[in-house]
Amino acid sequence: MKTLKFGIPKGSLQKATISLFEKSGWKINVNGRSYFPDINDEEIECAICRAQEMSRYVENGTIDAGLTGLDWIEENKSDVEIVDDLVYSKVSQEPARWVLAVPADSNIKRLEDLQGKKISTELVNFTKHYFKERNIDVDVEFSWGATEAKVVSGLADAIVEVTETGSTIKAHGLKIIYELMQTNTQLIANKESYKDPWKKTKIGQIILLLKGALRAENMVGLKMNVPQDKTEEVIKILPSLNAPTMASLHNSDWVSVETVVDAKVVRDLIPTLISVGAEGIIEYPLNKVI
Amino acid sequence: MKTLKFGIPKGSLQKATISLFEKSGWKINVNGRSYFPDINDEEIECAICRAQEMSRYVENGTIDAGLTGLDWIEENKSDVEIVDDLVYSKVSQEPARWVLAVPADSNIKRLEDLQGKKISTELVNFTKHYFKERNIDVDVEFSWGATEAKVVSGLADAIVEVTETGSTIKAHGLKIIYELMQTNTQLIANKESYKDPWKKTKIGQIILLLKGALRAENMVGLKMNVPQDKTEEVIKILPSLNAPTMASLHNSDWVSVETVVDAKVVRDLIPTLISVGAEGIIEYPLNKVI
Amino acid sequence: MKTLKFGIPKGSLQKATISLFEKSGWKINVNGRSYFPDINDEEIECAICRAQEMSRYVENGTIDAGLTGLDWIEENKSDVEIVDDLVYSKVSQEPARWVLAVPADSNIKRLEDLQGKKISTELVNFTKHYFKERNIDVDVEFSWGATEAKVVSGLADAIVEVTETGSTIKAHGLKIIYELMQTNTQLIANKESYKDPWKKTKIGQIILLLKGALRAENMVGLKMNVPQDKTEEVIKILPSLNAPTMASLHNSDWVSVETVVDAKVVRDLIPTLISVGAEGIIEYPLNKVI
Amino acid sequence: MKTLKFGIPKGSLQKATISLFEKSGWKINVNGRSYFPDINDEEIECAICRAQEMSRYVENGTIDAGLTGLDWIEENKSDVEIVDDLVYSKVSQEPARWVLAVPADSNIKRLEDLQGKKISTELVNFTKHYFKERNIDVDVEFSWGATEAKVVSGLADAIVEVTETGSTIKAHGLKIIYELMQTNTQLIANKESYKDPWKKTKIGQIILLLKGALRAENMVGLKMNVPQDKTEEVIKILPSLNAPTMASLHNSDWVSVETVVDAKVVRDLIPTLISVGAEGIIEYPLNKVI
Amino acid sequence: MKTLKFGIPKGSLQKATISLFEKSGWKINVNGRSYFPDINDEEIECAICRAQEMSRYVENGTIDAGLTGLDWIEENKSDVEIVDDLVYSKVSQEPARWVLAVPADSNIKRLEDLQGKKISTELVNFTKHYFKERNIDVDVEFSWGATEAKVVSGLADAIVEVTETGSTIKAHGLKIIYELMQTNTQLIANKESYKDPWKKTKIGQIILLLKGALRAENMVGLKMNVPQDKTEEVIKILPSLNAPTMASLHNSDWVSVETVVDAKVVRDLIPTLISVGAEGIIEYPLNKVI
Amino acid sequence: MKTLKFGIPKGSLQKATISLFEKSGWKINVNGRSYFPDINDEEIECAICRAQEMSRYVENGTIDAGLTGLDWIEENKSDVEIVDDLVYSKVSQEPARWVLAVPADSNIKRLEDLQGKKISTELVNFTKHYFKERNIDVDVEFSWGATEAKVVSGLADAIVEVTETGSTIKAHGLKIIYELMQTNTQLIANKESYKDPWKKTKIGQIILLLKGALRAENMVGLKMNVPQDKTEEVIKILPSLNAPTMASLHNSDWVSVETVVDAKVVRDLIPTLISVGAEGIIEYPLNKVI
Repeated sequence: MKTLKFGIPKGSLQKATISLFEKSGWKINVNGRSYFPDINDEEIECAICRAQEMSRYVENGTIDAGLTGLDWIEENKSDVEIVDDLVYSKVSQEPARWVLAVPADSNIKRLEDLQGKKISTELVNFTKHYFKERNIDVDVEFSWGATEAKVVSGLADAIVEVTETGSTIKAHGLKIIYELMQTNTQLIANKESYKDPWKKTKIGQIILLLKGALRAENMVGLKMNVPQDKTEEVIKILPSLNAPTMASLHNSDWVSVETVVDAKVVRDLIPTLISVGAEGIIEYPLNKVI
Repeated sequence: MKTLKFGIPKGSLQKATISLFEKSGWKINVNGRSYFPDINDEEIECAICRAQEMSRYVENGTIDAGLTGLDWIEENKSDVEIVDDLVYSKVSQEPARWVLAVPADSNIKRLEDLQGKKISTELVNFTKHYFKERNIDVDVEFSWGATEAKVVSGLADAIVEVTETGSTIKAHGLKIIYELMQTNTQLIANKESYKDPWKKTKIGQIILLLKGALRAENMVGLKMNVPQDKTEEVIKILPSLNAPTMASLHNSDWVSVETVVDAKVVRDLIPTLISVGAEGIIEYPLNKVI
Repeated sequence: MKTLKFGIPKGSLQKATISLFEKSGWKINVNGRSYFPDINDEEIECAICRAQEMSRYVENGTIDAGLTGLDWIEENKSDVEIVDDLVYSKVSQEPARWVLAVPADSNIKRLEDLQGKKISTELVNFTKHYFKERNIDVDVEFSWGATEAKVVSGLADAIVEVTETGSTIKAHGLKIIYELMQTNTQLIANKESYKDPWKKTKIGQIILLLKGALRAENMVGLKMNVPQDKTEEVIKILPSLNAPTMASLHNSDWVSVETVVDAKVVRDLIPTLISVGAEGIIEYPLNKVI
Repeated sequence: MKTLKFGIPKGSLQKATISLFEKSGWKINVNGRSYFPDINDEEIECAICRAQEMSRYVENGTIDAGLTGLDWIEENKSDVEIVDDLVYSKVSQEPARWVLAVPADSNIKRLEDLQGKKISTELVNFTKHYFKERNIDVDVEFSWGATEAKVVSGLADAIVEVTETGSTIKAHGLKIIYELMQTNTQLIANKESYKDPWKKTKIGQIILLLKGALRAENMVGLKMNVPQDKTEEVIKILPSLNAPTMASLHNSDWVSVETVVDAKVVRDLIPTLISVGAEGIIEYPLNKVI
Repeated sequence: MKTLKFGIPKGSLQKATISLFEKSGWKINVNGRSYFPDINDEEIECAICRAQEMSRYVENGTIDAGLTGLDWIEENKSDVEIVDDLVYSKVSQEPARWVLAVPADSNIKRLEDLQGKKISTELVNFTKHYFKERNIDVDVEFSWGATEAKVVSGLADAIVEVTETGSTIKAHGLKIIYELMQTNTQLIANKESYKDPWKKTKIGQIILLLKGALRAENMVGLKMNVPQDKTEEVIKILPSLNAPTMASLHNSDWVSVETVVDAKVVRDLIPTLISVGAEGIIEYPLNKVI
Repeated sequence: MKTLKFGIPKGSLQKATISLFEKSGWKINVNGRSYFPDINDEEIECAICRAQEMSRYVENGTIDAGLTGLDWIEENKSDVEIVDDLVYSKVSQEPARWVLAVPADSNIKRLEDLQGKKISTELVNFTKHYFKERNIDVDVEFSWGATEAKVVSGLADAIVEVTETGSTIKAHGLKIIYELMQTNTQLIANKESYKDPWKKTKIGQIILLLKGALRAENMVGLKMNVPQDKTEEVIKILPSLNAPTMASLHNSDWVSVETVVDAKVVRDLIPTLISVGAEGIIEYPLNKVI
């Protein structure tokens, strides 16, 4: 039997990823401290790896495919197939981005001002490369986290750090002067594995269902009763991609209209629907939207 | 941009209220100890206030609208617009009510017997007013909770206390001899704010969706297959407000009947539906019922 | 008013059973350490009993009906009505079974080799009877759990123990040489009670809804849009028991097809449906499938 | 190297026992679900067993010695050496005792009234023997806990149950009519093991230190300064077993008096000491009192 | 038998008080939600009351004595005997004090500027009285906590609030302009009770031991070996109230010096002692220092 | 006022270090996520840094002194003053050591066999240097933890990893073939700072008290009564560094002997002391042993 070796990112994304797989139809059971959790699909073998190292494992074929951030693919300069982009739901609305920050009162205002300076970051290779391409000579040093403190303590003149809202950076008395990269979770595959038709199909199935489950987190089913002569008007208001489903009501000249909409618009949509004549509106939850 | 300032009651109702808003379509994010939580609607500003003080804030216009109990509106004699009544789901079925209680072996049997006596309560103004209206002269003293203990210890002859089931009162050796008021959560508005058409419409949207989410907690969707000739019989049994939705089954003279019913009746309804000929009955959860 | 006395098994099954009743439409409220929890149905009185003793209570009429394992019915040789079999969802896929285990290096290979030996078990009567029927003379002794340790310490030559995967038995250096019984949760009734038409009907209602809620845990609703001319092909693929519901889409020659399927097949079904031409596929959760 | 196999009782006593051993000078490290915890003494091997079965393991030599209750030694009729009695500190002051209880309104008033009746208990053998000795013919049935409910439900006429304060028995509507046995934790040894001088000495060391640590939980060190001429008076008041230690104070005609007393008497002792002239009284905690 | 009724303050002080009593020699056992916890002294009956109401209970004789803050004694204008002052150990070093605070940018700078203004506080009576004495006419309104928000929202011009470090007040954009009172935990007694010699003695015993246990939290025993000829020098350095205890060392011309010192000075004291010639210094914990 | 900047290691050692400082006489209060916790000594400023980076901060003078492992000092090749070695109490008795491990079935048996191979480690610089010194050409790659998995997955031929018992390494199917370094917590200082007499004295005070508190964790006070004529014999048995303290007993020819011993020997010492004639032995806990 063929199997696909799939990498789950360790740490902050691990729980969210396992929960997303469960919504997609796969139960992953992490037994204690093992790096190889069980999954209820004989065609998949799971492995847990740090997001920072995932693309190295995918590149050398230890695993066929996996989830990691664009940032660490770049940092490792890994030669892998980027199959798709997954937008996890997050607390903030901002994308994660790697930025250059300096003390709030620093004279450093542009990339060029860093000539000859020291930069502290977890993303050493990417940062070196970024400045080299721009012919700016900088000294990049590896930081084990708490990177903001490096500037405060004089170990560095600037930092390259990941942030969503910028609030931690600000709280340490620093200001962002430049954005180097936006990053997001990617599903990546080993290039050889991706040429194998069976593996490509299996990866396609995983992507299809992961994205269906992610989409369902932000969508709901909506169903309402509408007088026959108001149908056109109601349907024009509905922001659904597909045409709504129509059914009749028992012994009545009303019809039932059912569709799927973005959960965020419901609170504004319902008052409008009522004003046009809809009644008996119900909203129900969805597991998957493909 | 116009905004509506809305008050969330602190304490026991806070968590239930925030969860109800989430079901209604608004995420409220309480950041630590701040009184001003974030909400994902640019048209609303939230504030957290004690239920006891909410109507004072609404009356003086600090906030435009808010949720509080009828009891504290009365206690503060606040001149506010009572917009609607919200029945939260509770553990017990009994309404919350403010009652007069005395020692189980007391001679005090009616309101009149309290002439010249001492009453301990959190609801001082309301209680004073209540007895004054009835020309009974009593001495009402403020209690910081644990009001039942005031009678036991001789600090008071009777208490006016809120209760659902009466069990705490009974457990302290007291008996209820009179009910002064039933109370429930109210959505109230500042009178000036409520004259502003934009604010009135916004308040209307909040009420509509809060009540839709509350209703959905106790209702479910029900769908079943019915032989064509039993349709009338089945529909007669269904306790739904609106006419049910009818659809055909593939290559069959059965029809699909779908409706929304009170969750409590389902366990008795299903055996009856089966006895009349329904099959393939499914029940599904609802987020909102408007 | 008539009432049915119903037994809830204590311990590991208690939480699962109460949660199953809630999904079925009954709220059971366990107040502290009382053996008689509240239930929101005036026709039922609940009692909590150990699964090991349930059938003795049902047999002597202390309770009319209850849930327990087949193993303990056999152990108690209780003369009760076995009404139905309930398959709770479990971590493993294996059935629970009572097996005979001996040290991995033992010479005991068959039941007959136990002649004159000592067996330790929690299921004393059943084990005695099982060997007596086969004319094998053994000494069966009661064990308070940790039965595997009895063989290691020389207190017994073999054990009869319950297991799903066999891993605990293996971890103690033992091997399974024989399976005596498979067991599962049963709904049992007192024989007299079951002759009472009212009680029999009430028990039937409970069974119907418990099984409907259990079934819904593993099933989902599936709805999709299909081009008119692909309908037959799509329906042939759908593994649903009942004919799917058909409805029209607004101003379109596509149709809506809706059905209920096993949750486990969805991850493989969706790619197939797409390949045949289905679109706008949504999956939604179910509370009950009758 | 010789080793002593020592049994730690599982369940409610386990934590208290391990903590007592730690105070006595031995660290026991329970690793997960193993029955054989580590101990930092190469001369001891630990095993965890249920208190109910401990004496059977000690009798058959699986372990050399262990801690269990007198009740279970009697129940198992185990032929073991009872080395010493350990009084653990408990919430209540009452000893644990096995009592006979019947419904509060029962006609059963004496042991003799149970002739021909059914008794439910966890202590089957002991109870059978107890009534046989008194020539009372009873039917004793094993109960899996919740024994009080057996009488309420008609499965038994009386129970034999363990209790400290009697409150659980009373709460089930039963009354105690007879006390069969008082029980306490015992250190027991296998008879052969106890004849081995090395093992006897090792058991003696364990007993000595366990009792020293238990005693220290209820005792404290007390030290005070006393004018030379009040020494005799102060010493007469001190309830210490051993003569107090005397030392001089620097450049003074006061002396320092130091002793060990029961912690419970300190609150009454200190005011008395002050009244006689003691000053600078300090109390300090003890780890062991041998 | 005579008993003393003693009040334990509810809420934030409750746990600290019960723990202090335990160190003093009394175990208080709070059973669930009862206001009357058990205590292992037949001469005391405990009651739990809110600190805000304690002095009213003491004044009317419901309880003989209790612990509460000076602030609430003043607020209730209770006529009680203040027996002693207890300094609990706290996180901050600052005393708790009731202060007057106004918006940071307010024109109000002195008490007099509040003439005709509105003040929000939990300490209504005390505040009214304080301003009346100074002939300043203010409107004082009761606040249910979150008092700082009253100014921000326009419900008040100033607040009177309790604080240790002032940080909460500052965090709400207010500034402290005046301190009205410092407060601390007091042991108070009913005046009649305090005239009863038995009760006075019992209260004296409680005070003596509570203060002894409080003192011991900040003190330690210190013992060291000193060459005979350095004794005077060492003793001069020791900051002990009482003369140290002297003992000889075995076969040596060194002496042992032992005393009790403030825990805070130890880290500076030890290097000094070493420099003068002390050796073998040990520090040990204390339970009580009387 | 002069201050000493002192670094507390973040992560697993942080809690143990703060607790050790508290026993030594300094309270460190970590406020949320700040890197600069409060300490109750105006002469010290604390900073929290990762152990991996501590020596870089000390070397460049950001902090004057701090605690870190010998391994990370070597890794960073930091030019700092190593002031003292601190042995924290640990679960295992083994020292932490960095070892070279390969698959259990590997042909690699000695350092030399790694010629041309790939090594994965967190300690990149140290490992490179170690092999270079021995003229073995290896490719050393940085690992973000879970280093054992690097070999299993083929990313490396060997790992250099820290371990106490070797059990994690073994559990991943690897074997240890060489030990490169033993490591322990060091107190290090900046070389310039250590030349400043005030700072050197302050560092000396910290070391003195930290080591005093560490020592006290494993030592206890022991006191006993001995007949005058057995004194010499008892004292010979006592394993104390300093001569014991002698005092007389009241009206008796016994003496009191008091000393400090290693907690581990007590369980064997007490039976011996009794056999020689000692009585009334008590053991008491210590806070510091200098």
